Amino acid sequence: MTQPTLYHIPVCPFCQRLEILLTLKGRRKEVDFQVIDITRPRPDWLLARTRGTTALPVLETADGHIIKESLVILQYLEDIYPERPVARRDPYQRAVENMLTRMDGEFFSQGYAWLMNQDPARRESMREGMLNQYAQLNDFLLTHAPAGPFLFEEFGWAETVFTPFFQRFWFLEYYENFELPDDARYARVRQWMDACMAHPAAQQVTKEEVVKLYYDYSRGAGNGALLPGRRQSSFAFEPDWRVRPWPPRTKYEHSATDRELGLLSG
Amino acid sequence: MTQPTLYHIPVCPFCQRLEILLTLKGRRKEVDFQVIDITRPRPDWLLARTRGTTALPVLETADGHIIKESLVILQYLEDIYPERPVARRDPYQRAVENMLTRMDGEFFSQGYAWLMNQDPARRESMREGMLNQYAQLNDFLLTHAPAGPFLFEEFGWAETVFTPFFQRFWFLEYYENFELPDDARYARVRQWMDACMAHPAAQQVTKEEVVKLYYDYSRGAGNGALLPGRRQSSFAFEPDWRVRPWPPRTKYEHSATDRELGLLSG
Repeated sequence: MTQPTLYHIPVCPFCQRLEILLTLKGRRKEVDFQVIDITRPRPDWLLARTRGTTALPVLETADGHIIKESLVILQYLEDIYPERPVARRDPYQRAVENMLTRMDGEFFSQGYAWLMNQDPARRESMREGMLNQYAQLNDFLLTHAPAGPFLFEEFGWAETVFTPFFQRFWFLEYYENFELPDDARYARVRQWMDACMAHPAAQQVTKEEVVKLYYDYSRGAGNGALLPGRRQSSFAFEPDWRVRPWPPRTKYEHSATDRELGLLSG
Repeated sequence: MTQPTLYHIPVCPFCQRLEILLTLKGRRKEVDFQVIDITRPRPDWLLARTRGTTALPVLETADGHIIKESLVILQYLEDIYPERPVARRDPYQRAVENMLTRMDGEFFSQGYAWLMNQDPARRESMREGMLNQYAQLNDFLLTHAPAGPFLFEEFGWAETVFTPFFQRFWFLEYYENFELPDDARYARVRQWMDACMAHPAAQQVTKEEVVKLYYDYSRGAGNGALLPGRRQSSFAFEPDWRVRPWPPRTKYEHSATDRELGLLSG
């Protein structure tokens, strides 16, 4: 082998982090991205390499070692391609971005839990939980980077970590009518999000792709699982998402068929 | 200010990580350790500095910045005291210790959940969950460091992260009669634990202190909370734990009084 290989899932936010980092470094072409189909069982050769782990992304280094966990892989890529650093080099600034990075888990979980929620009675508390997450980010940014738009001068480590989530949460706009209120409580995080999502290094996905692929999540089925009565997952590679119609937005009232989702091929 | 200040809680495993790292670096005296009493409300001056966060440890840097989260502080100390590195400098080795480090959350949660469990019917599943955690560590070590005893040549980053938990889990031995079975499935993790706990840089706590202070946790009351009928928390500074008797081990049958625990002063 002459270059690292990344096994990834399309529109996986954790995988996108790595694409963003490599793009920022001008190294995107130096890693071989191998797409894994989440709707099928993992191939045996991959399970053998990951020693049974199904979670992706997984990086196989140039000399055949396996590295798991997006943040661990991110640091590895930062270390082997030290030119054009993405992480801060100053110890205190690095600590600030690490503190922000550690807020990623709850932010992610809240957004995905809301998307997957099937109980209309819980929508309001889900919305409040989500707003609370944005408020915490707002507060952190106001403390450490009041002027903005980024945490430091440029799109960096924290932006690499969070931007894929901001883009995934287009699914909340579509399926839950969620909009961040035009309110001073969220002004700083909105400024950050807008700058993050507009950055040229973070254009790997579109709203249309996210909304179409995550339809099954909106009905409570994650990780390529198949919903009752369906033959194809919304994460299927074929037919391509570009030729499918936009899914129905009525997640609490209606379960779309393969046909409605444009998933019947041939 | 001329030196960093660390606000910490006695026997807090996350705080101990920082003590271990500084000890390994020969820098223990260069950080001012300020003990915070977990059994009382946080003082206003501290809440003002942490902006309302009650979680500890918190580091105040030499120029007055606040850093939260033990792993973030650990990295900061590693960066400002770069001599005698504790983290690996090789990118792949760093990735290996980062992968192991990311297993800390579940390991910690499983052990504390079992200690705090009040339902005797759940003991067996708690034990199995704990054994599963050890098996995962064993498997990781066999893959990445079959010979041992440490992950690399010396007690390093991963050892700094895990050793405080190994020592806290003395409370499972005492209150739950838990012993890691003498079985090949756990042989490698046992070798690691033994080497970690015996290391001279990791001698900040004793089994006696852990068992006495964590009594209230064994009855389901965490973070210095007061149990019904009690006036003093087992985390109280006075009377000193050294002069108190060993607590009763019958957590499912009996709730000890302040008197039985030696907590009545004067």
